[in-house]
Amino acid sequence: MLIFIGLGLHGEGISLLGLREAQKADIVYAELYTSLVVGLDLKGLEQEIGKPVQVVYRETVEQRPDDILNAAKVGKVAFLVPGDPMVATTHVDLRLRAARAGIQTKIVHGASIGSAAAGLAGLQSYKFGRSATVSFPDNPSQVPYETLVENRERGLHTLLLLDIRAKEGRAMLSSEAIEIMLGLEKKLPKNAFTPDTLAVVVARAGSDDAIVKADKVGRLQKLDFGPPPHVLIVPGKLHFVEAEALKVFADASEDMVQ
Amino acid sequence: MLIFIGLGLHGEGISLLGLREAQKADIVYAELYTSLVVGLDLKGLEQEIGKPVQVVYRETVEQRPDDILNAAKVGKVAFLVPGDPMVATTHVDLRLRAARAGIQTKIVHGASIGSAAAGLAGLQSYKFGRSATVSFPDNPSQVPYETLVENRERGLHTLLLLDIRAKEGRAMLSSEAIEIMLGLEKKLPKNAFTPDTLAVVVARAGSDDAIVKADKVGRLQKLDFGPPPHVLIVPGKLHFVEAEALKVFADASEDMVQ
Repeated sequence: MLIFIGLGLHGEGISLLGLREAQKADIVYAELYTSLVVGLDLKGLEQEIGKPVQVVYRETVEQRPDDILNAAKVGKVAFLVPGDPMVATTHVDLRLRAARAGIQTKIVHGASIGSAAAGLAGLQSYKFGRSATVSFPDNPSQVPYETLVENRERGLHTLLLLDIRAKEGRAMLSSEAIEIMLGLEKKLPKNAFTPDTLAVVVARAGSDDAIVKADKVGRLQKLDFGPPPHVLIVPGKLHFVEAEALKVFADASEDMVQ
Repeated sequence: MLIFIGLGLHGEGISLLGLREAQKADIVYAELYTSLVVGLDLKGLEQEIGKPVQVVYRETVEQRPDDILNAAKVGKVAFLVPGDPMVATTHVDLRLRAARAGIQTKIVHGASIGSAAAGLAGLQSYKFGRSATVSFPDNPSQVPYETLVENRERGLHTLLLLDIRAKEGRAMLSSEAIEIMLGLEKKLPKNAFTPDTLAVVVARAGSDDAIVKADKVGRLQKLDFGPPPHVLIVPGKLHFVEAEALKVFADASEDMVQ
């Protein structure tokens, strides 16, 4: 059996159920390449689980998953994953491979950045349109800008996730993402992301030193939000409770949220 | 201090961090009216936390929150919430009231039905448009149908949450939601939700007896998915990996996902 277990957003974000399942597993793997788990203490986690945790990278999971699958054929394998397990395509692939090999699979859910970032900013989840990822300039994509335009036309909020390359030790910061989005605005000008657009930066969601800051894009770009992970929210039409929440919890000025 | 702590989707869905914060709190409240936590064992949770958990209802939280706020002024109050804390508007209100009273607030995130339902069905989170709630017929709303139409026009998936009235012991089942949606289709005919539309029912997400079933709406309506909570997903355009996942994990027939 192969059990995907969400680590949530924070070093102690695993659920009691997830911990119990990992404790009962014969082998425990963890992938830490699809997202960052703030303050993850791998040694501490191993102690809680009571067995070693083998960290695997994208190449292993996507190209050489045989060790994982063979172990899951004969025993119980826990596969720890940042956030909620199936948000990344790579985990759906692994689960499909397991199913095709006749291996039972199971998911233990964890907190995910989507609802967390919305909640930290005081924005309502059901008013978010589709989300998108801002990718690094060497792998350019217009999708985040096009998604933003589409959502804005409908008054919806947009969550922009920021690219990560764990092996290279790179995780995009909000300032880089803003620069890329401003570049897309210049290229495909639809007035959806300018220095005057209201946006929210959420840094290190789920941790004790999370920062949530709403301001004009031009000002946010100049601020230092500390270490990653960062995400960017571009609000659509604000309900008055959302406007109030942005002032109280994200330090937005009155004129920004009117 | 007032700490909102997500209980996730399952009786043991609270995170290690959430448990630790609840253990350190002077008073622990829980609201169980915004959503159902499958298999929640309140006695067991009290034992884990090491102190009694006071269950509060909507009236208390929205109209008489003074006990909670006064306790949070002088001590540390944990407020347990199904799923991820700020998804329900009522919690944003309470957090705003606390902030206005000079009380520090904090959020410990939990798994939420949005990413969980998508993941269980093998559908990609970023391909979901906005979500909506199907409300009971005595409080009718066209919003879920209009949301579905809007998302379908863009090829996006739609998550439909189902209404709950905890105090009356009512939680909408997928069959009721389908009936309501078919009624809206008749009233506002846009060919978005007919007996032939592909949909997915996710019952008891996060629990060991979760059911995930993709089929035509007309067939899903006749099936018994057991106790709530249920949600409904209406897929938009399927990527071939999503189509494969619906076959393998949601028992969809080949012709349904082509």
